[in-house]
Amino acid sequence: MKKYDPLEDGISSVELIRVSGSDLDIANAARVSYGKISYELSEKDKKLVSFLMMHDHTSPFEHNQLSFRIKCPMFVARQWMRHRMHSYNEISYRYAQAPIEFYTPKKWRYQHQINHQASEGEFENIEVKRKYQESIDLAVKTYQEMLESGICRELARGVLPVCIYTQFIFTTNLHALTHFLKLRLSEGAQWEIRQFAQAILEMATEYFPASLQAWAEKNSINITKSVD
Amino acid sequence: MKKYDPLEDGISSVELIRVSGSDLDIANAARVSYGKISYELSEKDKKLVSFLMMHDHTSPFEHNQLSFRIKCPMFVARQWMRHRMHSYNEISYRYAQAPIEFYTPKKWRYQHQINHQASEGEFENIEVKRKYQESIDLAVKTYQEMLESGICRELARGVLPVCIYTQFIFTTNLHALTHFLKLRLSEGAQWEIRQFAQAILEMATEYFPASLQAWAEKNSINITKSVD
Amino acid sequence: MKKYDPLEDGISSVELIRVSGSDLDIANAARVSYGKISYELSEKDKKLVSFLMMHDHTSPFEHNQLSFRIKCPMFVARQWMRHRMHSYNEISYRYAQAPIEFYTPKKWRYQHQINHQASEGEFENIEVKRKYQESIDLAVKTYQEMLESGICRELARGVLPVCIYTQFIFTTNLHALTHFLKLRLSEGAQWEIRQFAQAILEMATEYFPASLQAWAEKNSINITKSVD
Amino acid sequence: MKKYDPLEDGISSVELIRVSGSDLDIANAARVSYGKISYELSEKDKKLVSFLMMHDHTSPFEHNQLSFRIKCPMFVARQWMRHRMHSYNEISYRYAQAPIEFYTPKKWRYQHQINHQASEGEFENIEVKRKYQESIDLAVKTYQEMLESGICRELARGVLPVCIYTQFIFTTNLHALTHFLKLRLSEGAQWEIRQFAQAILEMATEYFPASLQAWAEKNSINITKSVD
Repeated sequence: MKKYDPLEDGISSVELIRVSGSDLDIANAARVSYGKISYELSEKDKKLVSFLMMHDHTSPFEHNQLSFRIKCPMFVARQWMRHRMHSYNEISYRYAQAPIEFYTPKKWRYQHQINHQASEGEFENIEVKRKYQESIDLAVKTYQEMLESGICRELARGVLPVCIYTQFIFTTNLHALTHFLKLRLSEGAQWEIRQFAQAILEMATEYFPASLQAWAEKNSINITKSVD
Repeated sequence: MKKYDPLEDGISSVELIRVSGSDLDIANAARVSYGKISYELSEKDKKLVSFLMMHDHTSPFEHNQLSFRIKCPMFVARQWMRHRMHSYNEISYRYAQAPIEFYTPKKWRYQHQINHQASEGEFENIEVKRKYQESIDLAVKTYQEMLESGICRELARGVLPVCIYTQFIFTTNLHALTHFLKLRLSEGAQWEIRQFAQAILEMATEYFPASLQAWAEKNSINITKSVD
Repeated sequence: MKKYDPLEDGISSVELIRVSGSDLDIANAARVSYGKISYELSEKDKKLVSFLMMHDHTSPFEHNQLSFRIKCPMFVARQWMRHRMHSYNEISYRYAQAPIEFYTPKKWRYQHQINHQASEGEFENIEVKRKYQESIDLAVKTYQEMLESGICRELARGVLPVCIYTQFIFTTNLHALTHFLKLRLSEGAQWEIRQFAQAILEMATEYFPASLQAWAEKNSINITKSVD
Repeated sequence: MKKYDPLEDGISSVELIRVSGSDLDIANAARVSYGKISYELSEKDKKLVSFLMMHDHTSPFEHNQLSFRIKCPMFVARQWMRHRMHSYNEISYRYAQAPIEFYTPKKWRYQHQINHQASEGEFENIEVKRKYQESIDLAVKTYQEMLESGICRELARGVLPVCIYTQFIFTTNLHALTHFLKLRLSEGAQWEIRQFAQAILEMATEYFPASLQAWAEKNSINITKSVD
């Protein structure tokens, strides 16, 4: 299956590893209500799926599953895992030695002047980039020296910066996923996690086009255009 | 896929309509912790899956999905849907006219002498069976007369007995499913729902043999022998 | 605490048995984001709570709890317990003998001509009422005869109609509760459960006025006027 | 209410900010099953609560709530928030400037020789401590320089190490809490989070003594003795 690099740094990735169910299954789940079943996705089925999405009939969207393998900065993973309706298995830096992979923004962003939680604009600053890298380099060096002196991984990782990359499996269904996407594609979300959400939306839409096109329309979201 | 008739009355049914994932995916979900992946289920993988199950490492068992179509008496459905970690879509007797299908036990059971919540023994009683049927018949007749007089389905169904059959889609993952099975295969569960749980266990084991054999062993449950 | 009789038949009831937290706690939960705490609910706090509600910042609304004792017809309980984000403990008719308490609508409603799932209008029909009662009476008589013949409660209750009353404890938080209220106060919900939802909204608003007034405004819902 | 400093560094803290419900409410929730209510906690009630806990009747333990204010290292918070059955509100370093508070272990621990995920023993190493501190110091300096150059907080925090302190509100009920405690008091859990779990167990036991003493006995856990 396809693999995306949402942060375009050659490290980040989103990979769809397994899908179960389809728009047809969603229509059939809804039709249980009146005891009918359909074997091929008709125009009528698509209209039903669209109607269900538009009117917040969420339960039929739970009988399907998408499983993704994600590689993202730890601060993105922290935002992600606040969503409790999904399943996660993450690499453990108690168990495995941390890789020397960190996220460095291509451009810096300014603190937003009004919204305390947001950023705006973008600019370059070579000097800051150098310092950012030096700070990471010292953290890595310290981490390795701690390991060499026999200190356990679970304590040594304490010096590693939160821009370090982590990996996890993310498993969800369309109901839970659209909730995640709504929050993480919104303007209020940090730019980095929005890139992941956008990649996921594009990948999922291939498998559930009627559902996600209706959802995107309802929420005025463009499926293919970058949210940037 | 296979279809079971757990109550052996020609009405009840359990049908597995979709499965996603396998024992191998469970092993791989666990291995994310140390960043490895496997492409074929080896003996080592099976041991890992068994180890995870034995030691309550539950998260790797969530990256898979089983979807069943269930037909059961309403009192069974009521016990079932108290389990909140699954997805359900049920036929609505506000929307659809109720079918004339009711559950009649093949044998009666006595009230348990010690356990207030349980039953024991079994016996026949033709006289009681006749009265049980008469009561159902009057309920059906009344229901139909109410509908004929223009009363809405959502009120008319008020007279229908809780032994009426209902249908729903039940979607779950192995972590949530084993929790359901543990409670609903236990001696404390009502005989009727235990038959459904047993059918589900047998069906699911075909697709996740390493996981469910380890689980059955851990809980001293026999996968193929009836719980009767 | 207050007790309501939402169906006005002298049997139904909603009783608020315990509340924890307040609008102030919601403001403080939100302020954890920037490390501040408030000891008295100011106008600024109320505005914050209102802002959070209006913009779907749901997490601060989870750090509180409301616990209700509910007595309602079983078909209402079935709709209610499809909501999985709450805690329930219900009377068991495997354990306890069922009471002779059933719901009889004061007025009948017609099947809706367009919406398959709805009802409309209201009318009286003495003849139907008599038949409805006769069907219930036979069910009760049969139930009692079955118990007398030694049959266990869990099987005998099979003849009881779904308009029978049941009781349960319903525990929730404001985030989960507003989701429940939105669906069960909507026009699409059955009239009976809407009466319960309305009673709960009124009771909860006494304890969380800023939160629920903002919520009601957002959803164009009148807190005190009956939804009838 | 009491405040603990589980890591004994003058920075970490666990504070119980609100409790609702009691052992009596748990007994009453269970008694809904047979329609009874009790107004004072009797010896019989305590036995009932103990019985429920011993036999995994979990639902009565959900009708109560405990709310804690936690201050812990970020790597502890990451382990904590993998538990999805609780409510959280955490300080945001997108919104607020990060404090200069970091966790430094009093003693180092060795990597465990057999268990890849664990540590063992303890030792001092002044040289390592100095390097650990230097790495943190450079991260803080870089963070501050980035902010001074106008870079937004959400990107600047990328250099901060995962031993940084964070704060959050943690709200739960006894059912969900005992699940958390079982995993986070176990030998397999990292020493740091075990100190928090132990503090929470002690605090909660004051309010739910019958429940948590039964739970501790069942799981062979000592409520007051440190897990160290």
